[in-house]
Amino acid sequence: MNGTPHTLVQIPPGVQCFVGPEARRRRAIEDVVLSVFEGWDYEEIIPPLLDYADVFAGPALGPKTYSFVGRDGSLLALRPDFTSLLAKIAAGRLRDRPAPIRLYYSGEVLRYEPPKAGRQSELYQMGLEQLGGVGPAADAEVVAIAAECLDRLGLTGWVIALGHVGAFGAILAGCGLDAAVLEELRNRVESKDADGVREACARHGVPSGVAAATALLASLGGDPAVLAEAEAALSPWPAAQGAVRELRAVADALEDAGLGPNLAVDLGEVRGLDYYTGMVFRLYAPGLGFEVGGGGRYDGLLARFGRPMPAVGFMLGLDRVAALMGRQGADPGTAGPRVESLGDMPLGKALARARERRKAGGRIRFAADGGEAVRPAGETAP
Amino acid sequence: MNGTPHTLVQIPPGVQCFVGPEARRRRAIEDVVLSVFEGWDYEEIIPPLLDYADVFAGPALGPKTYSFVGRDGSLLALRPDFTSLLAKIAAGRLRDRPAPIRLYYSGEVLRYEPPKAGRQSELYQMGLEQLGGVGPAADAEVVAIAAECLDRLGLTGWVIALGHVGAFGAILAGCGLDAAVLEELRNRVESKDADGVREACARHGVPSGVAAATALLASLGGDPAVLAEAEAALSPWPAAQGAVRELRAVADALEDAGLGPNLAVDLGEVRGLDYYTGMVFRLYAPGLGFEVGGGGRYDGLLARFGRPMPAVGFMLGLDRVAALMGRQGADPGTAGPRVESLGDMPLGKALARARERRKAGGRIRFAADGGEAVRPAGETAP
Repeated sequence: MNGTPHTLVQIPPGVQCFVGPEARRRRAIEDVVLSVFEGWDYEEIIPPLLDYADVFAGPALGPKTYSFVGRDGSLLALRPDFTSLLAKIAAGRLRDRPAPIRLYYSGEVLRYEPPKAGRQSELYQMGLEQLGGVGPAADAEVVAIAAECLDRLGLTGWVIALGHVGAFGAILAGCGLDAAVLEELRNRVESKDADGVREACARHGVPSGVAAATALLASLGGDPAVLAEAEAALSPWPAAQGAVRELRAVADALEDAGLGPNLAVDLGEVRGLDYYTGMVFRLYAPGLGFEVGGGGRYDGLLARFGRPMPAVGFMLGLDRVAALMGRQGADPGTAGPRVESLGDMPLGKALARARERRKAGGRIRFAADGGEAVRPAGETAP
Repeated sequence: MNGTPHTLVQIPPGVQCFVGPEARRRRAIEDVVLSVFEGWDYEEIIPPLLDYADVFAGPALGPKTYSFVGRDGSLLALRPDFTSLLAKIAAGRLRDRPAPIRLYYSGEVLRYEPPKAGRQSELYQMGLEQLGGVGPAADAEVVAIAAECLDRLGLTGWVIALGHVGAFGAILAGCGLDAAVLEELRNRVESKDADGVREACARHGVPSGVAAATALLASLGGDPAVLAEAEAALSPWPAAQGAVRELRAVADALEDAGLGPNLAVDLGEVRGLDYYTGMVFRLYAPGLGFEVGGGGRYDGLLARFGRPMPAVGFMLGLDRVAALMGRQGADPGTAGPRVESLGDMPLGKALARARERRKAGGRIRFAADGGEAVRPAGETAP
């Protein structure tokens, strides 16, 4: 065997393994989240674990995809993401379904992470996509569903950070900057480094008005009221102004629906997966140093698969939700029912009794023949 | 791209993809089965999707394993089976837990199937293992759990075919036959071809008494009463007789527990996964030409991972259960709740109303802004 030496009982770094109470907690979380998805009339999709590797090609996911050659010589890949897979299925197998198609999923994704980076290769994601979902109504719906999930899980203090990737591109569109410079500026905006943005703009000869508007994206955040300020400041760039106006419509709807206290605006939120084209959001909560989930609008992805249509979606990382609930002491309600032990009888009689108790809805521990310790009836499962 | 040409929306042969009602049906089946597992006080384990390939090495699973090289150069494999993985985890991560360890799982396995064979590469299995489970009590418990699953799913006419892999080996142990001959005989016994067994025995110089006993395995089946006959006929081979006696204890317990009408004995049931060492069973039902699940005792597998102990388990194939339920017209209870459509209001007001209805437990379809067809309130989800 090549590679890092391992014993026969060691598991590879970065993969999942949950037993007993941990597994129960995860299933309880999944039940809550999926019941919310169902409640908004999304339909479950159970997509394949693997697909042709070309589905996931692209700068963000391509390099993180576990790929291998299938028996027929095709290059296959373990799904690193659900969104691309669902976009493909909506354009292929579901091509005759009228839009919008509301789908939700829950399952593992696999990502090639450098060994020793301490990052998980196997992640569990729960999310949904509104394929063909148009405008602020679809955006606001998706954000409201995400909010309801966190609420029903008993999480507190969480914040929805709303952004829009459109303003950044629209401001810089006319400057003829190459991709590397755009990437540098995007990184500075994302780091909320307004001074860095101004410095880089000066270095690359970006006109001062454009530089100031770009720096504004890096510095404007917090209360949704800043959107009015941004909209005014961006009047020289109608497309950027349109992006902010779109975001404002979403933020206003969420405020009207009572989500104001959980809302923050972050116009520096311009990165994320490379397929995002409009409103984007991330979900943060006290107790966790990174987002528990997020999503956004991706109006260009379905065209790649031959069925151009707008789309918006989001996902929650189950691992992150579970960690956050642990830190907040939130209880997904995992206490098992009481267990009744059965033993001290001839095998056939004990089994008949066990089946009776099960018919009556009991939870039992079968311990006939004295082969194991008998727990007193009524003891709770570990 | 090498391999068979495919369009960008095609999915590879043999992988799963379920949408809407199909996904709902599968989840309903899974809920029933897992609640039975919980009811017998088994704990869920969520094991990794991939592991080092050496875990699955062996004649039965090795050649069917999808393997690939991980970033650190290790040979990794997608799990083709849960039993080996759970045995490894019981011997490693759970080494300090006293036996018996009762674990259940539910998830995908991946198997390398020849293209165009029309077989699934991606299968969904639900099963459990009693690691450290000793004797007929553990065997009978596992079979009774399997039976309860089929019962609760509303399936009818199903049969538990009980066998034992020990008798075959014990009868032929003293004959000095090589592996290929044993395999030939095993195939004939498995095909219930008693004449073929006698012919092959004659050809390979197997003594006539041994030949007759081996042919008996191929022909004895049906009512559990045949076990008394087999026990008498196998008196020259005490180990074979012991195997039959063990099976009788299991069959008697199941009869005492009311499962007699569902029970069949099949002493020709001598194959299956290569790790089985004792009682084995398969679950058949009218409407499906192959078993819906099965299991057995594997007392040698855990020693491979350094924690020798007996074990017994079983699994149901979700794909097969779903197919069988379809053919029997059994309903896992998948009718969705009524859906209330919301629209014809300004976005913020519609969203506020949607959140109210959700708080009250309603299932809604958010259709603000007229971007889509509004279904009349009360219409059932598709």
